Amino acid sequence: MPVGRRNIKITVEYDGASYFGWQRQPNHMTIQQRLEEAVEAVTQAHTTVHGSGRTDTGVHARGQVAHLHTESSIPPEKFPYALNAHLPHDIAVLSAEDVAADFHARFSALSKTYAYTILNQPIRSPTRERYATRVWPAVDVSLMQQAASCLVGEHDFAAFQSEGSRPGSTVRCVTRAELASDPPLIVFWIEANGFLYNMVRAIVGTLLLVGHGKVSPSRFRSVLESGARDQAGPTAPARGLCLMQVTY
Amino acid sequence: MPVGRRNIKITVEYDGASYFGWQRQPNHMTIQQRLEEAVEAVTQAHTTVHGSGRTDTGVHARGQVAHLHTESSIPPEKFPYALNAHLPHDIAVLSAEDVAADFHARFSALSKTYAYTILNQPIRSPTRERYATRVWPAVDVSLMQQAASCLVGEHDFAAFQSEGSRPGSTVRCVTRAELASDPPLIVFWIEANGFLYNMVRAIVGTLLLVGHGKVSPSRFRSVLESGARDQAGPTAPARGLCLMQVTY
Repeated sequence: MPVGRRNIKITVEYDGASYFGWQRQPNHMTIQQRLEEAVEAVTQAHTTVHGSGRTDTGVHARGQVAHLHTESSIPPEKFPYALNAHLPHDIAVLSAEDVAADFHARFSALSKTYAYTILNQPIRSPTRERYATRVWPAVDVSLMQQAASCLVGEHDFAAFQSEGSRPGSTVRCVTRAELASDPPLIVFWIEANGFLYNMVRAIVGTLLLVGHGKVSPSRFRSVLESGARDQAGPTAPARGLCLMQVTY
Repeated sequence: MPVGRRNIKITVEYDGASYFGWQRQPNHMTIQQRLEEAVEAVTQAHTTVHGSGRTDTGVHARGQVAHLHTESSIPPEKFPYALNAHLPHDIAVLSAEDVAADFHARFSALSKTYAYTILNQPIRSPTRERYATRVWPAVDVSLMQQAASCLVGEHDFAAFQSEGSRPGSTVRCVTRAELASDPPLIVFWIEANGFLYNMVRAIVGTLLLVGHGKVSPSRFRSVLESGARDQAGPTAPARGLCLMQVTY
């Protein structure tokens, strides 16, 4: 029995190692495609699943959010189980709820939080490197924290975007930029009202130069202020990055 | 230049998901076989790698220990890198050191520590279930801790062994049995001077019955005292189990 057009918000976790990122594309498997196939299997209707934003190839998520329109009458609390029955083991819908017709996973988002996990040891780790990037020699976490502090606030983050960004303003407001050390793991947490393309990974690549004493915290601030991508460090690998939360 | 017969102790980490456990066997790939192949590639000599004990199919390790005899003159600090170049991504030698001729990874061990990770949530988790066993409904961790406390000390653990144990005494001394809760994860830590076959997994399977209110902590103690395997709960899955440390 159709109940009219509903708008459903879903929260999604995935291991991104086997996917070419979030966004549907020809010839490569993506998270969005898998989710749309699952929604179609459950609702018998072709449906677009709108994410809060793209995640790149190999990036993970514990709290990606998306919305979709459906006429299915399935109760929201049963929707995750119904979808998960049609999803592979590396993607899961954690929760679902009915939301207002004007809710949009991307445009309604107030902030996103990413975590980037660094494994700081000389030898590779079979049980940790699926979700962490290993670096050596040892990094100075307090220097990295000094540098990261200057990210908080409203800034032009052009120095930390990669080619391929959407056109438009490169000003964003960062509300959290913290390192949590639990040796041999270091997690960089960053929350902002939006992120430029590859912004977290460019920041982490530059923070690692700080941690290795190659860039001082004050130089890091100059890089941010320069707005010039060639002043910043390399883009850190995708495997350490995880989209943790989107707030509305 | 041969330097005579050395005895080398190695510490090994592995993701056990793709292996039929530690011990070499025909027709199935094991951790021991992979390590012996790597040692042979490095030293040009067929060599037995003696582990501190078997781990079962699918069980992981962060601190398995083994020893091997070799006439290779490779310095111990270079041995991990040399071996890792010949090991797949899911096995790594973390460290190596020369030890006395009578050191034996199994017989010299004073204690072993295992961690068993439980993921306590209703929905599956793509990024956590590689190293955790998911259970639902919610468990009462304080009841589980009450029950686990009775494991500490010297006891006959016959109630918690599976068929296939080595013959001999079933008395072991447990020096630590603690639950650490960091929702939605719960980690059960247990250290003992030795473990019977499947002992940790049988204990965890029974502790989960306690956590779900099906077995009281005092009944758990009676199960231990009974010495009867059919009084205990099911054997918990391998994926949550990890050998963390062997002390000498």
